[in-house]
Parts: sequence; structure tokens; C-alpha cells
Amino acid sequence: MRSQGHPRSTGDREADGPRPPFAPRVGLVSPTSPRAASTALLTDHYELTMLQAALASGEAHRRCVFEAFARRLPDGRRYGVIAGTGRVLEALEQFRFGDDELRFLSDHEVVDRQTVDWLESYRFSGHVSGYAEGECYFPQSPVLVVESTFAEGVILETLVLSILNHDTAIASAASRMTTAAIGRPCIEMGSRRTHEESAVAAARAAYVAGFEATSNLEAGRRYGVPTTGTAAHAFTLLYDSEKEAFTAQVESLGKGTTLLVDTYDVRTAVELAMEIAGPELGAVRLDSGDLLIQATEVRAQLDAAGNTDTRIIVTSDLDEYAIAGLAAGPVSGYGVGTALVTGSGAPTASMVYKLVQREDASGHMQGVAKKSKDKTSVGGRKWALRRLSPSGVAQAEVIGIGERPRDDGNDRPLMIDLVRDGEVVDHQDIHEARARHEASRAELPRAAAQLSRGEPVIPTIYEED
Amino acid sequence: MRSQGHPRSTGDREADGPRPPFAPRVGLVSPTSPRAASTALLTDHYELTMLQAALASGEAHRRCVFEAFARRLPDGRRYGVIAGTGRVLEALEQFRFGDDELRFLSDHEVVDRQTVDWLESYRFSGHVSGYAEGECYFPQSPVLVVESTFAEGVILETLVLSILNHDTAIASAASRMTTAAIGRPCIEMGSRRTHEESAVAAARAAYVAGFEATSNLEAGRRYGVPTTGTAAHAFTLLYDSEKEAFTAQVESLGKGTTLLVDTYDVRTAVELAMEIAGPELGAVRLDSGDLLIQATEVRAQLDAAGNTDTRIIVTSDLDEYAIAGLAAGPVSGYGVGTALVTGSGAPTASMVYKLVQREDASGHMQGVAKKSKDKTSVGGRKWALRRLSPSGVAQAEVIGIGERPRDDGNDRPLMIDLVRDGEVVDHQDIHEARARHEASRAELPRAAAQLSRGEPVIPTIYEED
Repeated sequence: MRSQGHPRSTGDREADGPRPPFAPRVGLVSPTSPRAASTALLTDHYELTMLQAALASGEAHRRCVFEAFARRLPDGRRYGVIAGTGRVLEALEQFRFGDDELRFLSDHEVVDRQTVDWLESYRFSGHVSGYAEGECYFPQSPVLVVESTFAEGVILETLVLSILNHDTAIASAASRMTTAAIGRPCIEMGSRRTHEESAVAAARAAYVAGFEATSNLEAGRRYGVPTTGTAAHAFTLLYDSEKEAFTAQVESLGKGTTLLVDTYDVRTAVELAMEIAGPELGAVRLDSGDLLIQATEVRAQLDAAGNTDTRIIVTSDLDEYAIAGLAAGPVSGYGVGTALVTGSGAPTASMVYKLVQREDASGHMQGVAKKSKDKTSVGGRKWALRRLSPSGVAQAEVIGIGERPRDDGNDRPLMIDLVRDGEVVDHQDIHEARARHEASRAELPRAAAQLSRGEPVIPTIYEED
Repeated sequence: MRSQGHPRSTGDREADGPRPPFAPRVGLVSPTSPRAASTALLTDHYELTMLQAALASGEAHRRCVFEAFARRLPDGRRYGVIAGTGRVLEALEQFRFGDDELRFLSDHEVVDRQTVDWLESYRFSGHVSGYAEGECYFPQSPVLVVESTFAEGVILETLVLSILNHDTAIASAASRMTTAAIGRPCIEMGSRRTHEESAVAAARAAYVAGFEATSNLEAGRRYGVPTTGTAAHAFTLLYDSEKEAFTAQVESLGKGTTLLVDTYDVRTAVELAMEIAGPELGAVRLDSGDLLIQATEVRAQLDAAGNTDTRIIVTSDLDEYAIAGLAAGPVSGYGVGTALVTGSGAPTASMVYKLVQREDASGHMQGVAKKSKDKTSVGGRKWALRRLSPSGVAQAEVIGIGERPRDDGNDRPLMIDLVRDGEVVDHQDIHEARARHEASRAELPRAAAQLSRGEPVIPTIYEED
């Protein structure tokens, strides 16, 4: 049955033995996107019709300030986690109307000739500042601020929000999971449960929020997120017996591999796994049933046979609550899929992108805000800092309207320059973002770690000028 | 304030007058994706390590059947709607391991040399059949069946599921919305609430399930989905007065445009809108507040002034329940955002891709299935048809295991050939898919239109050989 003479994989790090089964198997690559295509049409039709009308009337070139913020956190969440900022900057650099985009807009009469001509030479020349990626945020936090003409800034709305709303939703859920895992590694494996490109972004966002690795290969290539994985039930079912399947896997991937032991009978499979790989067996994976009971039984079985270094990985429909419920169990790592990539009940961060300030007819900057009914906004340019206690615990999100809030000594500024005069000045490295998130979360009051529903863990306070 | 001498947009169809504000403004383009890049790494790491082990042991070339299906519909749903099939086929054609992909796999030791060499010449050469796009589906419906060697079929798992799970979740939610809208047009405008590429796919899936148009321009270019849109609150806020904003919009986009009337005071804005555009005003849009009360008031105000042809469009956080709640109101169309692109509570369709049949050591095909605990599958190749009553009403989803179920005369076959010997034979046109969905939904028992939670509207029945 076995083909003859093929070389044993020498590159498989799992074959080296005692490495944890979730050790990153992929190093860092430069975070360049393979998608060089224009991002300009990832935009709502009305952004361009507004542009057309404003160009025609002459108001398109008024100086403006647009802000992205969330009116509230997802229901019951104590904090949120900003992610996607680096992807926004990458998308901004690719926001160009080339021949294909312009031809579509002309042929389909989306906008008039004047507007097409203006778009042809479009380059964003304004400033962008905001929260660094990985930073925690709260209701009304000005997470991204765009200063430009109306024309240059308004057409970025859809793309900015698409990226921030998705990536922030994932990172916010992921952070609760890594908290619940109390130091045990979490692996993102939800690619199959979300759009194929969302999957890549979700892997990136989860990594920022403390996940160790992802199953998604493109996230490894594009962003340098460590990737990992061994085998599924289909592999075991391919063979005429479980023994043949395990033998084939161990021979090819090494004794340090993770064997999936719940295709037929778990106890039999664990016995077989130890018989084939011996005490060096890296890990076994459980993907069904009552994980706490099974993990406890499997641990006892492994230990009794001397496989005390063999880890137990669990992966069946986990979310932050299930992870917390397994805290007392002998579990070495968690693989998380559906709940992660769907934001664990909050698949979008509900951020909005609002015009908050613009030049008036006399050239003065004016704060502006929608007044009608339930969606009132606060006009005026915002700044933000996190007020800390003398011992460094976050006390409040302090937002200054119209001017920077007064720093009372321990406060930490939250906003950094991202783009100046159209040039990206801080590309937001995801490894730095990951460290930043860990520090930002550690600074929050301890109630932030509670999974129960509640209010934001610190209040948002306005300081008006 | 107004710039001089610019040409009035002559291409704006809204300027023509009485067209409905939601009339598609974009014609059809050929459905080619601009993303020519490889899709091969949109794949879980373990698909390739399984491949490696199976290549090494010699079992990789066993003939196999993989099936994509959902064990259940999303909680409480009466039926689901297949979408994404056309995108799966497009992605399959781009599933090639080029130099960049192979270098990543080698450099990062994801798989060994033998596997890299095999992937270099990878071309899918098997067959794919399944449900046509737009078709309704039920628990266990074999919506996509892949026949190939283990090696050729297993590595498609992640990408096939990513696409089907996302697009089907959106179409399934969208179909409930278009049902609830009782013939009034629904417009997809959720791009900003989901990943920027999910947004394009969501617009496509919503169109299949009966939406009239989308705000997403890339969906217009890539798939020929009609696009539409006029203005947001930022446009009104840009101007020193609402009057200047409305005047600028009407002058540029025509009297047939849709004016957003809830930036300040709705009654004042409607008065102003009629004053500026007269009886030809296309529509007004309400985006906040109690939409039923406001629409009723605005309708009375418009009618009293003679603007009986001016439509009322509503767009604030709508889902299928809110749409149904507005059925009695004078509403001309619905714009749907967040609820649509997040699947209205079910952001993924939970489909799985399982090995159900494979060649054994003696060359015979064997049904296979995981036996352990809660995730039991049914082994064996499946076929499906929809059993109809003499009057053409769906009675059951009939699934044959191992052989085609017997057609009792009125039954409608559900599976079509999509790929033969590696060549796509049916690309799944979305306009045909949209018509197919309408017909398939119309065939279901009337209880399918109920929004209340319940069981699937028809049972799934197995016929075993």
C-alpha cells in the first residue's frame, strides 16, 4: 500500500519531538498583500454620487474631518479591540481609479464626466490619525480620524468601515477567548465558516488579539501569522483501518504530530496512537462529544501509559464560554472556528464614519452633527487619552472635543499619526499590535476579564472646550 | 458658492423623471473576476499535511467522493438557499499552485518536497455535481458532490466551504427579507458592515435571493448586479443649509433623485424637498426613528402637496421582521444593511465537506462515515430530488444513498453537472439563479413564508439501496 522510496519529510518540525503541537510552523514574511488590484470600487454607489453633486456645486473642496467610531460596544461586552488599521492603510494605498474602474463608472453612468475626470487623478492627500492596532476601545472612541477635503475623505467611507467593522469584531471576540484560555494557546481554524478573504483577515485579527496561530495558509503568506495543522477525519476514513491511517501520518509527519482520535472509538484510538508513536507522541485531538469528560479520561489513559508529555487539543464548536468551562480540564490548547470568525454573536463592530467638522462659506471650521431622532452624533474634532490611576489601571476614556484633553499626569495618549499629507507614516506591524493589545488589556480593570454581560469596564468622559 | 460652467450630468437616469428610485442604474457586465490571483492558499494547513501523508503512504490516489451538506438549517429557519456555487467554480479554475505559493510552502516547511512537486502540477481532473445556485435546500441535501482522487478532492475542502457557507448564509437571510417585502424592492446596502470582499459576495448572493440592486460598485462591475445610491447625511452636513444641499443634489442628480430627509427635522426637509424638486421628486429616504409612523406622516404630507408619485424609501437597521412590520405602511422600498450581510443571526450556513465514499485496497468503492459521538455522518454517495404533489407543491427532500432515488412521476431532480473531467460545464449565471430561486421558493408549502421559528418546511427522507 505504501509507495516506495519517497524521502521522509525532514522539514517537519513536529518530527523533532517535544515541541508543543501548536508551535508556529511558519516564520515571518513581509506583510505585503498579493492583491495589487485597485480597492476603489469596494465602495458604495452613493459615495460617488455625493461627490458628483458636491463637485458640481463647488463645495467638494471644503476642508473636512471625518471620524470612525462606535456608538456602543456589542451587547454586554466590557471592551472592544481595534484591528484592521494596517489593512485600512494598505487599502488606502491601493485606492486608485484605473482604466477599468473609470470605464465601469462611465459605461454604467454611475457618475458624470467631470466626476470621472476628478477620480482619474485621485490621490488621497490628507491626514489620518487614530488608535493603533490592538488598542482597546470604548463607546465614542475616535478610532480613526480623516482630515481632508470632503471629496477626498467621503469616498473612503465604505472601505474604511468594511475593514474596521470586520477586523475589530473578530479581534474583540478573540481577546475574550485568549483571556478565557488563561495562557493556554488558542488556534484560529474558522476559515471554512466565513468568506474566503474574511478568513485571511480573521486570522490576522485573531493573532493581534493573542491567538498563537491559524490554520489559514494565506494569512501565513500575506501577514506572517504562524500556521499549523495536521489531519481531519477524512484522512482516517481514507484508510482501511485507523491503524494504517495513524501509521501513515506518524511516518510522514513525525511522532510529534497530533493524531485525531475521535473518528471511531476514542479509547481504542488513543491506545493505538501510543502504540504507533510511543511516548514521543506530540498530541491527540478531540473534536466531538463532552470535551471536559473526554479530556479527563484521555489524560488518565495517556498518563497511565507513560505518555505524560503528550498534549490534548480540543476543537469542537468552542467559544469563550466553552473555553472557560474547560479551564479545569487537562487541556493543552484550543482550536476555535465558527465562534471566532463570526465574532461570537457580534459579527460586526457597528462602527460609523461621520462628518464631524467642515469649513463653512467663510472658511471657518464648524462642528456638524445630524440632529434627527435616534442617531444623534457629537459634532467637532475629537482627541482621546486613557486616564490611568497612579498604579496604572485604566479609569476612563477621556475624549476632548475641539481640543486635546488635559493630561492629568498619568494619562496615556491614544491617537497616533498614520498618514500625513497622503503618505502612510506608520504601517502598523501586526507583531507590535499583538504586544500592544496584551499591554492595553492588562491595563484594564479586572472586571474586563469577566465573560458575563455588563457595561463597558471604564466610562467614556467628554472634555469640551 | 457654486462652481461655474460645469456640465449638468446628462447620463443620470434619475434626471429622466418618473423612474422608480431603485431602478437599476447599471446594466450587465460579463461576470469575470478581476482577481486573477491564485486561490490555492485560501486553504487550511492540514489539508496539505493530510495530502503529504497520503502521498507518502500511497493512498492519496484512491478514488473518493466528498460531499458538502448542512446537518441542519440555521435555528428556526424553514428552508435555506444555495448561493456561491458559481463562485466555487470560478475559484476552482484559479486553484493553482504557482511559484509564489510553492515557495511559501517550501520556505516555511508546510509540506515536503514530494508534496510540493505534486502541487506544482495540480489540476483538478474530477467531476463536480450539485444543486444549482438559487435552489432551496434542506438538512442533509447533498448540495455539492466532488468525485476525484483523495488528493485532488481533499485540498478543495476549505475553499469550497468558505464560499458556500458565506454566500448561502446571506442568500438564506435575503430570501426571507424579499418574502417579507411582498413585492416591494429590497436594496442591499450592507457593505460597510462586513469584510470588503464579503460585501461583494453578499451583494451577489442577495441578488440571487431576490434583491433588486446593491450599493456595492464592485458587485456591479464583477457580477453585473445593478447598483444604486444617492446621498448620505454627510452630504447634507457639508452645506451651510439643508436647502443648499438639496438644491445641489437635485441640480446634479436630477429631480428623480432620492433626498435624505432626516438630517434635521423631517417635516421641514420634506417641504423643502418638494419646493426644490416639485412634483417630479423621485423619492425621500428615512434612515432613523419610528419608520412606520414617519412614513405614514410623510406620505400624507407628500400627497397633500400633490407629490403622489414621490416614493418613500426606508433604511434604518432593517431585518426581515422590521420589513414585515412595515408591510402596512406606505413604503416603496427597503434598504437593508447589517442584518443582511450578517445573515440575520446566522452568519454561516454550517455546511461541512465530508468524505462519504472511497476506494478500498481491493479497488471497490466503500461508503465511509465518522462514528464517534455527536457528529455522525451518513456514508455513501447521495443523490437528491424534490418530491412534488400533483399540483406541484414540494412534499419532501428525497435523498438516495448509493443510487438515484426513484422518481415517482412528479419529482424534480435537484442535481446538475457542474464540472466534468476537470472542466467547468455550467458556470452558474446569477440572473438565471435569481429566476431559479423565485421558482424554487414558490414551489414550497406556504408555511415557508412564515418568519416564526419552526421546523424545515419539508422533511428530508432517505431512500437506501
